[in-house]
Amino acid sequence: MSPIIFYFDDLSQPCRAIEIFLLMNDIPHDKKKIKLAKGAQYSDEFVKINPFKKVPVIDDNGFILTESVAILRYLCRQYNVQDHWYPNNSKLRARVDEYLEWQHIGTRAPCALYVWDKVFTPLLTGVGTNERRLNNSFKRMEDSCNCINDIWLKDGKKFLTSYSISIADLLGVTELEELKLTGYDPKEGRPALAAWMERVRNATNPHYDKVHSRLNNLSKKYSTKAKL
Amino acid sequence: MSPIIFYFDDLSQPCRAIEIFLLMNDIPHDKKKIKLAKGAQYSDEFVKINPFKKVPVIDDNGFILTESVAILRYLCRQYNVQDHWYPNNSKLRARVDEYLEWQHIGTRAPCALYVWDKVFTPLLTGVGTNERRLNNSFKRMEDSCNCINDIWLKDGKKFLTSYSISIADLLGVTELEELKLTGYDPKEGRPALAAWMERVRNATNPHYDKVHSRLNNLSKKYSTKAKL
Repeated sequence: MSPIIFYFDDLSQPCRAIEIFLLMNDIPHDKKKIKLAKGAQYSDEFVKINPFKKVPVIDDNGFILTESVAILRYLCRQYNVQDHWYPNNSKLRARVDEYLEWQHIGTRAPCALYVWDKVFTPLLTGVGTNERRLNNSFKRMEDSCNCINDIWLKDGKKFLTSYSISIADLLGVTELEELKLTGYDPKEGRPALAAWMERVRNATNPHYDKVHSRLNNLSKKYSTKAKL
Repeated sequence: MSPIIFYFDDLSQPCRAIEIFLLMNDIPHDKKKIKLAKGAQYSDEFVKINPFKKVPVIDDNGFILTESVAILRYLCRQYNVQDHWYPNNSKLRARVDEYLEWQHIGTRAPCALYVWDKVFTPLLTGVGTNERRLNNSFKRMEDSCNCINDIWLKDGKKFLTSYSISIADLLGVTELEELKLTGYDPKEGRPALAAWMERVRNATNPHYDKVHSRLNNLSKKYSTKAKL
């Protein structure tokens, strides 16, 4: 059996979640970078792999799988990882699933949309997003951060869905880290969220910092521009 | 053990998917209708049950679970339903998961948005959605239907993710049925999609028609209005 092929771009939030997971669990993999900024996801070669033109994708010895959440569940089964990542207990698993399904519209869409409106649209078009749209996407992104702080992490919970780290936390933090590009700090004024992000970072370092290094470098550049 | 309490509204697509599943598998349940059109999801009583103010929700003897996809997976485990609904084979399960994760942005968001822009916004505000926005949401809805027909159902596949019906199919068809409200027929010009919808209906009747009866009645009223 060959190692898994992992198609990724480290500026994609779910790709970073999967890479941290692969590294934390010593899962052998070969990385193939699909440069989203150069449109590599639209190449004929890649569209044959994923007709939806997105990363992440894995190829496990000919079994090609898309969708980050499906990939993480598959890896948990195939590699028999520690139970806390995706608990076998039915009710604990349901709590992880609940977050994994909520996050598509709960964090992924609003956070990514705000980054797009605030940073990428001006970069690509040379013109800022119109103010009404930007205010709307800012508000939706803030609501999303508030849900994490006030609902998911209420009652002193250490992690999003239980007392220990799961794949839900990896998908959660990588979305919020992306906001760095805009200069917005989701931790400010949200103590539960801030402590949780730090907890996930500590639980997964040195991989967490390594996987976020390109984002951290770019955010210094773009977040300064975004503020101008 | 008491029956599950199922909080629902039959105009919600994922609620209909869950109700068909409960009926197909003879899972004892008590229905509690949350009238979305009357804003019942915002009542103090319901917000205590689901702070995200949405249906479906189940209460399994005190274990409250939100998010339709998480609920369906939980029911599959707890009631030991037939394997085809959510296969135990890791690769077949991954295919079902792949669709379940794709559909949030792939069908749920674009189909619901088009119904909203075409029918509910004019109904609630008395003013039609502006043409540019409506054209955009129409295009996204059409792309979504094309993905089902051309990608998910390619190569003569009988169901979305395999040779037999799964929870993915229930969530898929209920989204497309909702389009009836707008007068748009997703089956037209899409033979694979049309045959698949009919196949799912046949596999789940008489429950399918019963669960869609209110939508079918309303669609006669609203789709005529929407065309005016």
